[in-house]
Amino acid sequence: MTESGNSPTGSSFHSMWRELLPIGRHSDSRGYRRYAWTGADLDCRAWFKGQAEARGLAYEVDRNGNQWAWLGDPVAGDAVVTGSHLDSVPDGGAFDGPLGVVSSFAAFDELRARGVEFSKPFGIVNFGDEEGARFGLACVGSRLASGQLSVEGAHRLTDGDGVSLPKAMEAAGYDPEAIGPDPERFSRIGAFVELHVEQGRALDLSGDRVGIASAIWPHGRWRFDFRGEANHAGTTRLVDRRDPMLSYAETVLTARREAELAGAVATFGKISVEPNGVNAIPSLVRGWLDSRAADQASLDQVVGGIEKAAREYAAAHGIDLDVVRESFTPVVEFDHALRDELGRILGKDTGLTVPVLGTGAGHDAGILSGTIPTAMLFVRNPTGVSHSPAESATEDDCVAGVLALADVLEGLACT
Amino acid sequence: MTESGNSPTGSSFHSMWRELLPIGRHSDSRGYRRYAWTGADLDCRAWFKGQAEARGLAYEVDRNGNQWAWLGDPVAGDAVVTGSHLDSVPDGGAFDGPLGVVSSFAAFDELRARGVEFSKPFGIVNFGDEEGARFGLACVGSRLASGQLSVEGAHRLTDGDGVSLPKAMEAAGYDPEAIGPDPERFSRIGAFVELHVEQGRALDLSGDRVGIASAIWPHGRWRFDFRGEANHAGTTRLVDRRDPMLSYAETVLTARREAELAGAVATFGKISVEPNGVNAIPSLVRGWLDSRAADQASLDQVVGGIEKAAREYAAAHGIDLDVVRESFTPVVEFDHALRDELGRILGKDTGLTVPVLGTGAGHDAGILSGTIPTAMLFVRNPTGVSHSPAESATEDDCVAGVLALADVLEGLACT
Repeated sequence: MTESGNSPTGSSFHSMWRELLPIGRHSDSRGYRRYAWTGADLDCRAWFKGQAEARGLAYEVDRNGNQWAWLGDPVAGDAVVTGSHLDSVPDGGAFDGPLGVVSSFAAFDELRARGVEFSKPFGIVNFGDEEGARFGLACVGSRLASGQLSVEGAHRLTDGDGVSLPKAMEAAGYDPEAIGPDPERFSRIGAFVELHVEQGRALDLSGDRVGIASAIWPHGRWRFDFRGEANHAGTTRLVDRRDPMLSYAETVLTARREAELAGAVATFGKISVEPNGVNAIPSLVRGWLDSRAADQASLDQVVGGIEKAAREYAAAHGIDLDVVRESFTPVVEFDHALRDELGRILGKDTGLTVPVLGTGAGHDAGILSGTIPTAMLFVRNPTGVSHSPAESATEDDCVAGVLALADVLEGLACT
Repeated sequence: MTESGNSPTGSSFHSMWRELLPIGRHSDSRGYRRYAWTGADLDCRAWFKGQAEARGLAYEVDRNGNQWAWLGDPVAGDAVVTGSHLDSVPDGGAFDGPLGVVSSFAAFDELRARGVEFSKPFGIVNFGDEEGARFGLACVGSRLASGQLSVEGAHRLTDGDGVSLPKAMEAAGYDPEAIGPDPERFSRIGAFVELHVEQGRALDLSGDRVGIASAIWPHGRWRFDFRGEANHAGTTRLVDRRDPMLSYAETVLTARREAELAGAVATFGKISVEPNGVNAIPSLVRGWLDSRAADQASLDQVVGGIEKAAREYAAAHGIDLDVVRESFTPVVEFDHALRDELGRILGKDTGLTVPVLGTGAGHDAGILSGTIPTAMLFVRNPTGVSHSPAESATEDDCVAGVLALADVLEGLACT
């Protein structure tokens, strides 16, 4: 992102952005490693608290560790809330999450500069552990608050070093005994809007700076455990082998073919091998499938096809296969009335139609949409690259996003 | 292994075996993790020193950390040496290495019980870091001593945590400044015999307890670095992806086919993925190929075929591929005169021919064979499984191995 725009809102955005940039950035990969409840995450949280307090907003942390900054008393109800998350995937980019939080504060600054009065309580939120990079489950903060993740389920989450979620929260100075559903808090929110960098090229192809979300594709994560028999790679005859790497490899290639057939996506991006020695045939190859499609039937076809083929490959090689669905989110249709309202607000000065687009990425907005009227704004991503240090957006587009978010918030909370 | 045999030699073997069993065994996998210069390795080394001292043998550690136990003064020359190694692959079995060291001490006990006199200096050796599990290069102790690994090359070795070999040696209380070639020590050895559990089923299929090695297949390790572009697994269109996991998977399957065609073996048993996140297309998939064949031409054909195909797959997916040969050992033909001598000694009472077999596994004996007349004895492995917790041999066969080794040592050193 290059600096541009000398407007007060542009410089508000720019100075916040620069403060966040160094936090949790890995010196070799240049990617971000802001995992839930680690030092980098706590640094991001301290930054959020500082921004809230600098604006005189009432700061609080809810029972699940989500951070809130309030103007007015949310107990009055029908609050308008915006926000996103600050954590990252492994070696992620700077925009996925933080762009929404920074834009929320910048949009608030813009509304103050416009001198408008808020007629409803207004809040900015940072949801904890959206990416699930550490504990393997996405949107833990919003899932817990909405009751979509049970306390027992949260207690069972452990990271790669065997540290449980409660232990990690406790080590970070938070109280894990408090976690659980928060229906009263959610009942006070009348509308939630999340701004996010687009994770695809639809806006780039259409030539628009900002778009509105229609729906989140149904998506899930499946763990494929291929179990064979460890053996010496140099002395074991091919016919005597039960090598699970072969079934894994065949399954990876099938996943791509099935996704192509269904116009969906399917990815094996994470793998764990035991014993993982150069001269040892593996005893276990554990691969994680991420798959998403425009509708449930397509997703079932893709994942069912991959699993069926994997079982055939495994049987042919004497491999035991377990397939476990680790998480799943059905299709999320964002609230049509709120989506149309955003379209009216953003098109009112120009008369232009703002593009409405679906997305394969999960978001806290998707979790909240089950109980709260929820919408999303996307900001153009010129390469479509996301979850990578190369993720980008121009500063002009980011400022356009802030102004669009300010317009929306003014339309929803200041009338 | 079940206990059997009440002979003094059998019980000598059995008590040593039991002492070693718990060292470095992982409680979950039940496999051994005796990596060079770790605590488990140091415990094994303390055991070796104790065995040497309990027998009144002169104990010494050479400049490269290999342990020796001597009867008589090796400076006299034409020494007869036996031994193997005590370290393990990740989650390895109990036999690969330790069987040779334990059998060496037990064979010495047997010769004492026979009351024979040694006419030549006699030594038992434990070579350090044979498996290369920690620093990625096998037979470091014998390679350094024989001059097949330079001091500079050893200094460049690092483990998965970035700890260099010299630092690891220093932390274990050894002097890394001393490492280097040891030609004078090797010049005093007239014959080296290594006993090893068979890592295959040839003896089981032929119905023999013990065999003699003919040759070690040429073998090597190649690192394939497939570099693509990290991106969001949910939002990146298939056509926009540069996913290195696909080229890796195709290469794994090709390796199997090429090995089948050539009657060789090829294995991808170790992998490292970045960023290794469930919802991230990888930026890097690094796979290690281990390949071995009966002769150099076959091995060239296999590895050349795999690399050629991998480059085609990579080019088709927009992937950058680097292939690095990390280690290589040419074919090793063991000394024919010594091999024939072992056959005569072992067949003398029965008139039976002892089977002579090739092997795909590397050994310190292979390294030493470049400068010293060297031979190997194999003990039957009923399943052929090796480099796995399931690696096994019956105690009867192990004791038969000890007696065969004693016969060989008596024939070589006591005449």
